[in-house]
Amino acid sequence: MSADCVFCKIAGNVLPSTKVYEDRDTLAFLDVGPVVKGHVLVIPRQHYDPITGAPPEVLQKLIVVVQKVARALIRGLGAGGVNISQANGRLAGQVVPHIHFHVIPRFEGDGHARNWVPKQYENPQEMGQFGGKIRDALG
Amino acid sequence: MSADCVFCKIAGNVLPSTKVYEDRDTLAFLDVGPVVKGHVLVIPRQHYDPITGAPPEVLQKLIVVVQKVARALIRGLGAGGVNISQANGRLAGQVVPHIHFHVIPRFEGDGHARNWVPKQYENPQEMGQFGGKIRDALG
Repeated sequence: MSADCVFCKIAGNVLPSTKVYEDRDTLAFLDVGPVVKGHVLVIPRQHYDPITGAPPEVLQKLIVVVQKVARALIRGLGAGGVNISQANGRLAGQVVPHIHFHVIPRFEGDGHARNWVPKQYENPQEMGQFGGKIRDALG
Repeated sequence: MSADCVFCKIAGNVLPSTKVYEDRDTLAFLDVGPVVKGHVLVIPRQHYDPITGAPPEVLQKLIVVVQKVARALIRGLGAGGVNISQANGRLAGQVVPHIHFHVIPRFEGDGHARNWVPKQYENPQEMGQFGGKIRDALG
């Protein structure tokens, strides 16, 4: 537990939350500032940050709960779509430094417009260079 | 394999891609319309859609590769942050109907602004109602 972490406090019941699911390792609760009402956060009880800091088996537990929650947003709220989002680092828009997945129900006319603007590589060579750097770092 | 699916064609090498990682079950390659250059897509070779249609063990394999790619974007490209995004359904902005995770490197001044506008519940009762419906659907 990280003493200053709001999600650790929620996991430890030091701060209240509207829980929708919990098990030994994982907790899901409503985001108090939903981008769409019904927006759920899925977190591990233990503090990890960012995604690269979590053991793979923790992520594997989280993603199964993310799927359960997505299903519940469709069945329980009648959502027509679901966005899943996970941000790492201030540059990525992360606010709370405790790994969390956003699971967001989508409805016709819900007013949540993702700002998704595809760009282009200058040329195939530039794309190849990006691919090579990532591939090398994965190798 | 779904005959009309562009990601099935990429997985089957019928269409070219700039691959950065592959194993028996999973493939990662550059998005040709990157929201930030270096934007990677992680997919299962097999066709599943949406997230609720994939067996949990497929998601577990995917999320481990997502983590590897996130690490490679930081190490290989010097990304200062990483966004992970996964969309289900047209309402959620999904275009290709084959489950995929976006792994997006973030850099200072990269021009990618997420349109993240937190709303509020009318009152604690409304929040409780949303929580109850989701909890019931999970139970």
